[in-house]
Amino acid sequence: MVSTTNSTSLTGGVSGPHDQSLRARAQAVIPGGMYGHLNMRLMPADYPQFFASGQGARVVDVDGREFVDLMNSWGPVILGHRHPEVEEAAARQAALGDCLNGPSERMVELAERLVSIVSHADWAMFEKNGTDATTLCCTIARAATGRKKILVARGAYHGAAPWCTPVEAGTTVEDRSNLVRYEYNDLESVRAAAQSVSGDLAAILVSPFRHDAGYDQELVDPDFARGLRQLCDETGAALILDDVRCGFRLDFGHSWQSIKVEPDLSAWSKAIANGYALAAVLGNDRFRVPAQSLFTTGSFWYTSVAMAASLATLDVLERGDAMNNMVSMGTKLREGIESQAQTWGYEIRQTGPVQMPYLSFVGDDDRAVGSLFAAAALRHGVYLHPRHNWFVSAALTEADLALALSGTNSAFGELREAGIAPPHSA
Amino acid sequence: MVSTTNSTSLTGGVSGPHDQSLRARAQAVIPGGMYGHLNMRLMPADYPQFFASGQGARVVDVDGREFVDLMNSWGPVILGHRHPEVEEAAARQAALGDCLNGPSERMVELAERLVSIVSHADWAMFEKNGTDATTLCCTIARAATGRKKILVARGAYHGAAPWCTPVEAGTTVEDRSNLVRYEYNDLESVRAAAQSVSGDLAAILVSPFRHDAGYDQELVDPDFARGLRQLCDETGAALILDDVRCGFRLDFGHSWQSIKVEPDLSAWSKAIANGYALAAVLGNDRFRVPAQSLFTTGSFWYTSVAMAASLATLDVLERGDAMNNMVSMGTKLREGIESQAQTWGYEIRQTGPVQMPYLSFVGDDDRAVGSLFAAAALRHGVYLHPRHNWFVSAALTEADLALALSGTNSAFGELREAGIAPPHSA
Repeated sequence: MVSTTNSTSLTGGVSGPHDQSLRARAQAVIPGGMYGHLNMRLMPADYPQFFASGQGARVVDVDGREFVDLMNSWGPVILGHRHPEVEEAAARQAALGDCLNGPSERMVELAERLVSIVSHADWAMFEKNGTDATTLCCTIARAATGRKKILVARGAYHGAAPWCTPVEAGTTVEDRSNLVRYEYNDLESVRAAAQSVSGDLAAILVSPFRHDAGYDQELVDPDFARGLRQLCDETGAALILDDVRCGFRLDFGHSWQSIKVEPDLSAWSKAIANGYALAAVLGNDRFRVPAQSLFTTGSFWYTSVAMAASLATLDVLERGDAMNNMVSMGTKLREGIESQAQTWGYEIRQTGPVQMPYLSFVGDDDRAVGSLFAAAALRHGVYLHPRHNWFVSAALTEADLALALSGTNSAFGELREAGIAPPHSA
Repeated sequence: MVSTTNSTSLTGGVSGPHDQSLRARAQAVIPGGMYGHLNMRLMPADYPQFFASGQGARVVDVDGREFVDLMNSWGPVILGHRHPEVEEAAARQAALGDCLNGPSERMVELAERLVSIVSHADWAMFEKNGTDATTLCCTIARAATGRKKILVARGAYHGAAPWCTPVEAGTTVEDRSNLVRYEYNDLESVRAAAQSVSGDLAAILVSPFRHDAGYDQELVDPDFARGLRQLCDETGAALILDDVRCGFRLDFGHSWQSIKVEPDLSAWSKAIANGYALAAVLGNDRFRVPAQSLFTTGSFWYTSVAMAASLATLDVLERGDAMNNMVSMGTKLREGIESQAQTWGYEIRQTGPVQMPYLSFVGDDDRAVGSLFAAAALRHGVYLHPRHNWFVSAALTEADLALALSGTNSAFGELREAGIAPPHSA
């Protein structure tokens, strides 16, 4: 609940007329009008459902409204929309062919490249969805160990297949019966979960840090990560790092390289091809033969354009400027928002790595104030999210940042003017 | 086993030097050197693993060998490689944006289009893999019925996730415990399977015709299809048509439209965007609210380029020439091969629709003769498959067909010259 100290209400608008018209048409031919994580039904009504274009750090909705993009398609866009080097590499490959009777040379080049970049990796397999990659990691771990149980952190998101979707509708008890929950950063809870399935532990599945939607983010405790590695070594289980969301945003390598904890298997997707549909599983030599023993595939898993785009994305990332820019812009964004919050008298929390910021208002348990803030920021030209981490792209310029901070400042100001505050804050 | 009547042996070559070099590199960084249905390990050694390009009805491997393409990427390519209208539509959309913070108008247009084309469909949802689509159909059926069991035909392929992959390595008993098998075209076996799960029947999953890899194909008995519909009506289960492989090759609509049997849900992928990564679930109004109740998604399920490509593909298909061309070229191909077989004294079977031909030699139980035939055809410039149905594209011209038939004729001739014959044939 939001408490207001004066009568001014911060009523938002709705999305533009073309967006509204498309929503009405979608309602007729798409269940609920939209589905999945891009369903805008639970977002403030100002948020557009449909987009027209993107360029660099800007996106434009179907009504021509331009926004500084702090979501970047929920992660896939890491270098900015339509990055010239990536687009050129993709177009060059598309002129030859994409979906053929076998992969092109790009597949070998990309596998070699990822193996050379990611410290734990001896081999690579490619897919289309992040869920394909997390699922395949579990399947390989089971093939290797002959065991069934997978430990996963309570509340963690590892995809949207029946075994892992956060909503149980349509799933069966059996789909989920081989998962056992632990608490992130709580090694004792992992040891207890492992004990409970003694002898049947195939893998521990873990995110690089705690990034559950709707909660403040929590960085990994290096001792926790080391403890997982040790537990896997003791039990013969596979340590699976789900790097789908974080991969290449935190490090040019897997996201635990800096703390020197090596997973056996890692799942990748989102940013690895700057928006082209691609996922990957990387693994070490212990899991190579098990990976060969199973059968998994997809009609488009071998297509070349996304692989060419990925190679170009890695080229750009390797030069370092992009990685550095995400950190420096993310830091300036965080500092700017913190300073604005103080100026306007709001107590906020900004958690997680600066490249993947998450903003919450203290005491705003139902995210009502956060939603009003997001809607106000949107009206002032900044696209961010009230209940999910954002993604800073390397395309963000000083001018984009200034515009973004101007928008968030106006949003704080409007909230203050309307007397909006979380009920438990000052 | 192959019997030879003289001493000439039909030893094949190997793929080209660049292909061999890429295979060696792949061996180091991809488990087994390749995986899934495009793994050439079990094919004759002549077959290239890696391709360079495709145009119309021709594909070129990494050593520059050009082939008339009768596989068409195992189904996705229906109008021919790099069809100009499709490529133009894709490029136009790519210039605007592909992976944004929401879908573009293309998604609504495509859902409307599919609903208008496919008789049973009231709504559409989009994904990336055929397996995504079959999985989602099952999940929706379970959400709608509150039941768990799915009937599937023994030997049928419905994807490669743990619940449906034909290889059990890495899967759990629980992954597959809610499937019950029936025999294709045997209604009594379906009724018995339904009886065995009485009260818990969520859906019957069925392919438009029997196209199990490694077996002669079998068209659907319309009475069988009608019987499934009736059984679903009696029990409240969903009838799910897996049109991933056949969709738009047999009819401009779902593949049972011509026999007037309407499924509740249908799964699509492969050909719907002429090679761009896209899948779809179509459903009727009874399943709309259940479809809304679940959560499934993917980072790239809403991207616009594949949807633009799909719209263009449907435009071309709707004009009719492409559909007609697949039938007329497929018929000529079948007649030509039959005549050649007679000339060279081989008893063969060609089964399934002419657009999706399957060739086997009578008595060739281990496909050894078929493999030699395929390898010889390949050396004479025709790319076909010894153990899987082929796919005729609409791009096949009379000149391509003549080249293809010249290649198959040479292949029959080489087999005869080498004295190759299946052990049980004349």
